[in-house]
Amino acid sequence: MKAAALAFAPVTDQKSRFVSDITPQSQDFPGWYNDVVLKTEMADYSPVRGCMVIRPYGYAMWESLRDQLDRYIKRTGHDNVYFPLFVPKSLLEKEAAHVEGFNPQVAWVTHAGGEELSEWLAIRPTSEAIIAEKVKDWVHSYRDLPLLFNLWNNVVRWELRTRLFLRTTEFLWQEAHTFHATEQEAADEVATGLEGYRSACEDWLAIPVIRGRKTDSEKFAGADYTHTIEAMMADKKALQAGTSHMLGQNFAKAAGIEFLDRENKLQHPYGTSWGFTTRMIGAVVMVHGDDSGLVMPPNLAPTQLVIVPIFRSEEDRRVVAEAIESVQKSLADVMTASGPLRVKVDWREESPGFKYSHWELRGVPYRLEIGPRDVASGSGVLVRRVDRDKQPIALTALAAELPARLADYQHSLFQRALDFRSANTHNADTYDEFKSILDTDGGFLLAPWCGSRECEKQVNADTGATIRCIPFDSPDEAGKCLVDGKPSERRVLFARAY
Amino acid sequence: MKAAALAFAPVTDQKSRFVSDITPQSQDFPGWYNDVVLKTEMADYSPVRGCMVIRPYGYAMWESLRDQLDRYIKRTGHDNVYFPLFVPKSLLEKEAAHVEGFNPQVAWVTHAGGEELSEWLAIRPTSEAIIAEKVKDWVHSYRDLPLLFNLWNNVVRWELRTRLFLRTTEFLWQEAHTFHATEQEAADEVATGLEGYRSACEDWLAIPVIRGRKTDSEKFAGADYTHTIEAMMADKKALQAGTSHMLGQNFAKAAGIEFLDRENKLQHPYGTSWGFTTRMIGAVVMVHGDDSGLVMPPNLAPTQLVIVPIFRSEEDRRVVAEAIESVQKSLADVMTASGPLRVKVDWREESPGFKYSHWELRGVPYRLEIGPRDVASGSGVLVRRVDRDKQPIALTALAAELPARLADYQHSLFQRALDFRSANTHNADTYDEFKSILDTDGGFLLAPWCGSRECEKQVNADTGATIRCIPFDSPDEAGKCLVDGKPSERRVLFARAY
Repeated sequence: MKAAALAFAPVTDQKSRFVSDITPQSQDFPGWYNDVVLKTEMADYSPVRGCMVIRPYGYAMWESLRDQLDRYIKRTGHDNVYFPLFVPKSLLEKEAAHVEGFNPQVAWVTHAGGEELSEWLAIRPTSEAIIAEKVKDWVHSYRDLPLLFNLWNNVVRWELRTRLFLRTTEFLWQEAHTFHATEQEAADEVATGLEGYRSACEDWLAIPVIRGRKTDSEKFAGADYTHTIEAMMADKKALQAGTSHMLGQNFAKAAGIEFLDRENKLQHPYGTSWGFTTRMIGAVVMVHGDDSGLVMPPNLAPTQLVIVPIFRSEEDRRVVAEAIESVQKSLADVMTASGPLRVKVDWREESPGFKYSHWELRGVPYRLEIGPRDVASGSGVLVRRVDRDKQPIALTALAAELPARLADYQHSLFQRALDFRSANTHNADTYDEFKSILDTDGGFLLAPWCGSRECEKQVNADTGATIRCIPFDSPDEAGKCLVDGKPSERRVLFARAY
Repeated sequence: MKAAALAFAPVTDQKSRFVSDITPQSQDFPGWYNDVVLKTEMADYSPVRGCMVIRPYGYAMWESLRDQLDRYIKRTGHDNVYFPLFVPKSLLEKEAAHVEGFNPQVAWVTHAGGEELSEWLAIRPTSEAIIAEKVKDWVHSYRDLPLLFNLWNNVVRWELRTRLFLRTTEFLWQEAHTFHATEQEAADEVATGLEGYRSACEDWLAIPVIRGRKTDSEKFAGADYTHTIEAMMADKKALQAGTSHMLGQNFAKAAGIEFLDRENKLQHPYGTSWGFTTRMIGAVVMVHGDDSGLVMPPNLAPTQLVIVPIFRSEEDRRVVAEAIESVQKSLADVMTASGPLRVKVDWREESPGFKYSHWELRGVPYRLEIGPRDVASGSGVLVRRVDRDKQPIALTALAAELPARLADYQHSLFQRALDFRSANTHNADTYDEFKSILDTDGGFLLAPWCGSRECEKQVNADTGATIRCIPFDSPDEAGKCLVDGKPSERRVLFARAY
């Protein structure tokens, strides 16, 4: 039995009487987002300002994403390690641009063990400073390089305006820190990091990204340059999805890391760092979700198939239970692109309609309904979350068909997001055109820019848009800067952003 | 070919000219411990007092232990979640015994985002207080229970005297927090937690443990009672290896958590919490290690087999490389009790002797030496780290034999530690006997105790020993308390401890 082609029009009809009470996306996107995150029990507010609680459903997503990225990080030769939560003030201040960038966001421990500390300790906003200080003891010769470290930990940046997952005072992330004998090796490593993020976003989260370089005013505090991936959310705003930094010799010089190169000369190693955070769980909500709640990419989905039994009498229940048990057995060894098939059977004492709504809200890709009549015909009804396509399916065919259907679903979500981004990306050649598109359609704008920080600031002040990146695949194209009309060599990517 | 029986006499002869320069265990146990941890590059000191850096080799061990325990935790129905690092002062103070126990160890954030905070924030020393506060919003009916949460995170307790892994100001751990409708369910959960720890210690780390109940003066601050597992290190001192706490209704009452039970009456749920930390990596060093360094239990070992090529000429190198490649192929699909076989080939430009010492220091269970003469005879030399047993082995037999050999090695390490503990556990019936054994042999002492806090304190003041636990398997045995001669119902476990 062939599934209908995935139409993937967002499900916006609110006719079903079981649709959960969430703010419509079109009416209030931020309100819709908060409703989805809270009502799916992905996360909750905490008693501490700006910090969040990640509940089981949201944490299972983070574990899936983390494990996927961790496999890439290990495969590319990096070692997981741990460095302390605390960074002494004097250490944080060693790299001048770094401290200037992070100081306003730092939380400070000043008292501990019943006493006032002689030196304040920063809660790490990121770990460059403390790692460089230690690497100084470990690197003496070119033979000690490269050092390829990765950390999974929590960091704190005091944010004024916070949003669940997207911007929180404390967040979970991965931060890689590497040290190399040559600048070229470090540059290759910056690319390795970014490729891991691209793959995690596109292949796991089904979120297409644009790769590029940040402008100098948007680069990491203490870096020579920063590469980034940028994604479009369903409200057409941009989200920075991951960044990879060339630190050059900046932190090595500040910490005094030196090694003897092959010619027996003392050199400072070149560093990189790259990070990827829990905000990407929020991005999944904002890219794929609809008015019925989450739409989970199958690779990330904690549950890929939910089976809902339908029965009235005890006898029917018995018959249905037997059929489900045999389906579960047939599914036990099914492998999908993201590991063994993840199945749940919902035997709660609730109505089928309640259960449909419960799992739609949570974005489970497929639902299998099995009632006594289905059992009699050896089939069930398979419902696809994203477009509510509903098809009978032979119960014996499920095990063979599900992996391909899930792969198709995953691919279609990616394609839908890519089409959406394409449809909402525009060229703008003059400032008037730029403003007009931004005010009517929004979305991504590819426009000429002369490269000056003043023009960049001006656009932001006038429109709220920022330069998301100078895309790698932006071709050479002579033009005139939107603002001052000076020559531009290629279009850069502007958008309003999270 | 049958391997020789594992003798497992500790390797203390220092004849090999490649033995690393570490303090002999018998001469200075703490010095030996630090040497091993630092020279194996498991961990290092950090620029922050009392905090440590966990390096790749040590972190790989923690990941293995964490993953093993995480499988148990998930299999027994617990969900991983995340709660904030910060606990507002007012929250920490809600449960009176809890704050009294932890306050002296807390690190406080007083400034953040460039301002002084209106309320100080504790860095979590443990998360009972902040979790209870949030669970209050989630639990309304008995249908919402049980809640079975687990967290993998970092906590901070300001310690005056710290030791790598064993006692650090910041440490990594797992903390489970559960809420139940009845006290019996909570009591069962306390046992579930402890069983996970017993299994992690005995089955993964090859460390035998004694299960028992802590005395009231040693229980967790805020608990009704605490169950513990206690292990003996190679210096005969005890290490508390994991604890599981019955919190009763204490935190639920303090936070105001209430639910409607089946009879529609408002009740406070019963709570448990249980934790297991990075200190257990230190325990592996102290239980199994010897004068040549680490001895890794195969289940935990980041590398289970290291292959060392032996050659002088380029031609020999080519021949050996070919043989090793074919061995690697034959080992690619080998499964061991702890997953796919973990093999390394050491092609570094160093002498074989240097490599032997390098991997012995790191405790890799098996080493395979392959030279051109071995290749000619289709064999290699397999050397067992723990007793340096050295046997030729047919290269084609390796894949079939290694799983059983590793399982045998794992079991033998456990048995050796168990025998050592048995040989160093003594009954003492009088205080004189107790002191004499403690001063001569040390080790574990099973002795009568009346149950009073005063006698417990007295023993500690006189001898430095503490009551590690009231063992679950200590039989009823009438006796007289060591100190005041009052009646004792069973022997309790005394030892000097970390």
